[in-house]
Amino acid sequence: MTARLIDGKAFAAGLRSRVADAVPAFTAKAGRAPGLAVVLVGEDPASQVYVRSKGKSTVEAGMESFEHKLSADTTQDELLAVVAQLNANPEVDGILVQLPLPKQIDEAAVIAAIDPDKDVDGFHVINAGRLATGADGFVPCTPLGCVMLLKDALGDLTGLNAVVIGRSNIVGKPMAQLLIAESCTVTVAHSRTRDLADVVRRADIVVAAVGRPEMVRGDWIKPGAAVIDVGINRVAGAEEGKTRLVGDVAFDEAAQVAGHITPVPGGVGPMTIACLLRNTLVAAHRREGLEAPAGL
Amino acid sequence: MTARLIDGKAFAAGLRSRVADAVPAFTAKAGRAPGLAVVLVGEDPASQVYVRSKGKSTVEAGMESFEHKLSADTTQDELLAVVAQLNANPEVDGILVQLPLPKQIDEAAVIAAIDPDKDVDGFHVINAGRLATGADGFVPCTPLGCVMLLKDALGDLTGLNAVVIGRSNIVGKPMAQLLIAESCTVTVAHSRTRDLADVVRRADIVVAAVGRPEMVRGDWIKPGAAVIDVGINRVAGAEEGKTRLVGDVAFDEAAQVAGHITPVPGGVGPMTIACLLRNTLVAAHRREGLEAPAGL
Repeated sequence: MTARLIDGKAFAAGLRSRVADAVPAFTAKAGRAPGLAVVLVGEDPASQVYVRSKGKSTVEAGMESFEHKLSADTTQDELLAVVAQLNANPEVDGILVQLPLPKQIDEAAVIAAIDPDKDVDGFHVINAGRLATGADGFVPCTPLGCVMLLKDALGDLTGLNAVVIGRSNIVGKPMAQLLIAESCTVTVAHSRTRDLADVVRRADIVVAAVGRPEMVRGDWIKPGAAVIDVGINRVAGAEEGKTRLVGDVAFDEAAQVAGHITPVPGGVGPMTIACLLRNTLVAAHRREGLEAPAGL
Repeated sequence: MTARLIDGKAFAAGLRSRVADAVPAFTAKAGRAPGLAVVLVGEDPASQVYVRSKGKSTVEAGMESFEHKLSADTTQDELLAVVAQLNANPEVDGILVQLPLPKQIDEAAVIAAIDPDKDVDGFHVINAGRLATGADGFVPCTPLGCVMLLKDALGDLTGLNAVVIGRSNIVGKPMAQLLIAESCTVTVAHSRTRDLADVVRRADIVVAAVGRPEMVRGDWIKPGAAVIDVGINRVAGAEEGKTRLVGDVAFDEAAQVAGHITPVPGGVGPMTIACLLRNTLVAAHRREGLEAPAGL
């Protein structure tokens, strides 16, 4: 392996501790801690793990965590009433409704109901529009974390050729917007792209967010490129009955060629919660008319 | 010249007549004609020409035109009051505030005040967000017109490599979003792009929106590519004291290589008003809960 490993776990720990360090000053000024509300509907095991982890991290950062657990048969109106109550609660700076939601609930309607200034997930159409037009808003946590890792590894990104593979609203499209704002020349590739290998070979920065295990091969990577792997795919392990996690990039191959690369797990994954805490701290400052601390 | 000329003037005339043909059915169902309000502040000569032309085209299409001309010393509050009145007026389906505005007025605040469902210019942050997330909204007229011309010239755009030169909120960024939605592989290039010629040479579709006269040279163009020139630059003419309009593309050179190319003037330019009328007709249908006619 020649690539330098991008240690997302360590960077995320640093970000979380910078957030935690800034909390007491906010609390002193505002007379209350920053608050993050997480809403879970139903009993999806993965969602339960995520929600528990978010709550724990929130408390560890010195913020207040509000958890709302609703039964799987919650109606849309009931969920919208919870969102309205959280919108109105002055102690709540960030609202996160854990996805996916049960079938009887329209996710888009729920996201649209969240106060955009408490939308720390950055999924509201107004925050998508703010990002698209260069205004201050909230950026989805995963692409925000990817850009932080890239800037930490490479410094100024101006003029670099970046390829984003995937065009989802949650990762690919906001990632492209963020890299355009960093003055990269940005190419958005996807399932309909012809000769994807050739497109990737020109990139100084590759962000893979397609959800297809080890699709990006080592010989697609330009020597020295920075590779950010957003994929988390569970595949069969070497031993029968065991599974393991792999990214969208064939790590062992790509690490021979790349200049920097994120592992899976331990790369982008840990950045998501760290950025959620960061967004909550920023939301709290904006809501109180305070300037958010620099360097977050 | 080997390229086929993309006749934006003829296509725009066709679009305008399709809009006009659809107006009587709307008027019969809604009991009123679709209405477009244009607000002009001050006496900028170019803006006066645009506003007059928009009003004339609106009436020619059988729609109602509302013109509001305010003096150059209008305050922001006065302009916001006019916008509020137009938002509330049920006969107004589309609101266009002609830019630029005088210095004492914050353009962003005025655009933000327009009802997003009457924002036929597609500049409101909610419409930018709808475009970014694939929801129904209003798309800025110039990039919308460019995509119409491309689909008319090339048919299905899936898998084509497109390069958009320029990253403005009004043209470059929405253009990229539209081409991603058409399943092109899209590269956004700009002033910080390294070796722009090389980037452009790989493109099946080139959209130039930089405002620099004849910057894109013929030898940058891949043989057979479709070239859409959004630039309208006034430069010195051959005769002293005379000026002429040129695009961002060196037309004479590029036309030797391209498969399709838009002239300047007569290419993208005429599409803008045609798309404005189209957006107004669509807004009128949506506001009345009617399905907009297909093929617009």
